[in-house]
Amino acid sequence: MTRPISFLSDFGLADEFVGVVHAVFTRISPESPIIDITHQVPRGDIQAGALALVRAVQYLPEGVAMAVVDPGVGTSRRAIAVATAWGEFVGPDNGLLAPAVAMMGGAERIVAIEDPQYQLPRDGLTFDGRDVFAPAAALLAAGEITIGDLGTELDPSSSTPLLLPLVDHEDGQLAGQVLWVDTYGNCQTNITPEDMSAVGLETGNTVEVAVGVTSYNLAWMASYGDAEPGEALLHIDSYGQIALAVREGRADDDLALAAGTSVVIRSPK
Amino acid sequence: MTRPISFLSDFGLADEFVGVVHAVFTRISPESPIIDITHQVPRGDIQAGALALVRAVQYLPEGVAMAVVDPGVGTSRRAIAVATAWGEFVGPDNGLLAPAVAMMGGAERIVAIEDPQYQLPRDGLTFDGRDVFAPAAALLAAGEITIGDLGTELDPSSSTPLLLPLVDHEDGQLAGQVLWVDTYGNCQTNITPEDMSAVGLETGNTVEVAVGVTSYNLAWMASYGDAEPGEALLHIDSYGQIALAVREGRADDDLALAAGTSVVIRSPK
Amino acid sequence: MTRPISFLSDFGLADEFVGVVHAVFTRISPESPIIDITHQVPRGDIQAGALALVRAVQYLPEGVAMAVVDPGVGTSRRAIAVATAWGEFVGPDNGLLAPAVAMMGGAERIVAIEDPQYQLPRDGLTFDGRDVFAPAAALLAAGEITIGDLGTELDPSSSTPLLLPLVDHEDGQLAGQVLWVDTYGNCQTNITPEDMSAVGLETGNTVEVAVGVTSYNLAWMASYGDAEPGEALLHIDSYGQIALAVREGRADDDLALAAGTSVVIRSPK
Repeated sequence: MTRPISFLSDFGLADEFVGVVHAVFTRISPESPIIDITHQVPRGDIQAGALALVRAVQYLPEGVAMAVVDPGVGTSRRAIAVATAWGEFVGPDNGLLAPAVAMMGGAERIVAIEDPQYQLPRDGLTFDGRDVFAPAAALLAAGEITIGDLGTELDPSSSTPLLLPLVDHEDGQLAGQVLWVDTYGNCQTNITPEDMSAVGLETGNTVEVAVGVTSYNLAWMASYGDAEPGEALLHIDSYGQIALAVREGRADDDLALAAGTSVVIRSPK
Repeated sequence: MTRPISFLSDFGLADEFVGVVHAVFTRISPESPIIDITHQVPRGDIQAGALALVRAVQYLPEGVAMAVVDPGVGTSRRAIAVATAWGEFVGPDNGLLAPAVAMMGGAERIVAIEDPQYQLPRDGLTFDGRDVFAPAAALLAAGEITIGDLGTELDPSSSTPLLLPLVDHEDGQLAGQVLWVDTYGNCQTNITPEDMSAVGLETGNTVEVAVGVTSYNLAWMASYGDAEPGEALLHIDSYGQIALAVREGRADDDLALAAGTSVVIRSPK
Repeated sequence: MTRPISFLSDFGLADEFVGVVHAVFTRISPESPIIDITHQVPRGDIQAGALALVRAVQYLPEGVAMAVVDPGVGTSRRAIAVATAWGEFVGPDNGLLAPAVAMMGGAERIVAIEDPQYQLPRDGLTFDGRDVFAPAAALLAAGEITIGDLGTELDPSSSTPLLLPLVDHEDGQLAGQVLWVDTYGNCQTNITPEDMSAVGLETGNTVEVAVGVTSYNLAWMASYGDAEPGEALLHIDSYGQIALAVREGRADDDLALAAGTSVVIRSPK
């Protein structure tokens, strides 16, 4: 049965890289719908790519997801395919796939993509997205091979994990960080509503958000629309995480935030 | 019968928003071709989105069009689906859909998208594109529901119109404005060839174009190729509107124009 | 039999141009997969578009390829369709298609796209991508017409060639140029491994690369991964051409290169 292929990368859209990968998909599995998750992950930023993939994965149609953010291309890092209850993930073994695999219930099998008969021939350097990952993803989506055909079975515990920053609960405050600034300037943190409850905070409270030496007292609102235009607020975003936003504005600019910025949340004194 | 889905938004391509909406479409209606009209409408610019949609709509295959430019997300603005002779439009009730609906012959029915069984469950804030509009559009495209299933029937006259700037004819001159600057710097106005005729202007004439306190005498040419490289001209663009262009150059830069700039056109004295 | 359509342009993604062309494709040939090679060719840069097309073409599924980089729109340049052993190419007769046609074995037939019954009606200026090229490409992909239906058969030798810069071999050195800087800053030249052999250079050698008055001694490495982070190198890229790169960096910035920059390669003295 032909299945869809979802595709995420840091290839950008300026060159023909994404188009050539689509071409390889279509030659091998012409009936597979292709979903471009995004191709504008910052170059080589494995964590940003992994987070975009894990935000998207629960919405993807069952099938194959190929992700390529690969600063180690040309080195000895492995290319892997991972079977889960949802379907297969294909990409470099650098942690990029790990959070999405975990969200889909964990790896049932992991294999190294090795067999050259399932790769495209090339001169010179490998463009792994085109020559290694795309054929593997499309052959799996088309049902022409199973994951075990690609290469050696690996111990799932040997695959590279992604270490995401944890939230510290200390002295009744939460020390977390911004994980993602979206195109509108909304700033998603690694802090969950459960973390907030654990320090006694709930929707409707005013909370103190410390960013470096600056502190802001912000309302934790149920809805973005409850804020005045230009007002900063804290809310549970559409992925269920605590986020900072400015209605009709940009929280990253107004609050001096970027991906990786540390934030401390507590009750105001 | 499965129908195509056309999709326009201001989501940009930096994040996975467009990809996740495609994923929702594909899960619900895997056979529907998806046409991305554009996703780079300026953030929250309802008029720009409505104009891009109305320029595109006559070319779209019959089916469902979903458009999301939604500065009122999180407020009480309604989500609507509109049936026309062409097919259904899905989006916020903020005027975004109105010109395209009018071009397709007007609304036969309008319903509020309300029934939660046709929406995705979510934590926290709604991402309406993903959770409300995409399921409605895809279910309609797949033929699994009809528009009346989504919610309460509304009086078509109660939907929010879009007020587009009109052209003033006064003392033999036309006062209009730039509606759209395309990626090449071509500047489409709200002035039509019929407006030009009404003040006695025709192709081949030199016309005076006043932009603020500056006036330009430009030839109204039948074809862009009739101008010299670097020469500014006035022509009927490929949408049938009067537009300002510079051959192999940018009219927005050379004539100091942007979307919204007022222009007055008259015969030179 | 319905075939895929591949599509390259300089339309960018800011406007709805690409979306409207997809709409025309889908109306005419709803079963054709569509592959967007890229739409971010620099405006009007025929050579850049032709090179992106020729890099992609060997990966494209057999079918129809439509390419539009067309600074001569509105002039008398011809619109053509070209039959090859691979499939048909559709675009302006300005050299854009020539390298890809040559790579696919050369033109079997060339016709001028002329018959208005296979074009969309329009007011004002033609948007040839939408009105002329897209219907021709989609009708060919759908199998509804054959190339001879579009217009007058042309002498293949009358079509516009593309003159690509040649590599000079003189006094044991190679004078070439940068053809393409990709999104990562990698700089592909027009020099091949065969050129390198002809002047006695081979993988593993240190080579001198002169850019203007500056010379760099760089290692010709088998793999990008053999370089240290930040180190510049020369390698055979994934298209089989000699390229300059900086591991985890940008060769265009570090070596002051751009598309068109002349480079001289020789053995260090």
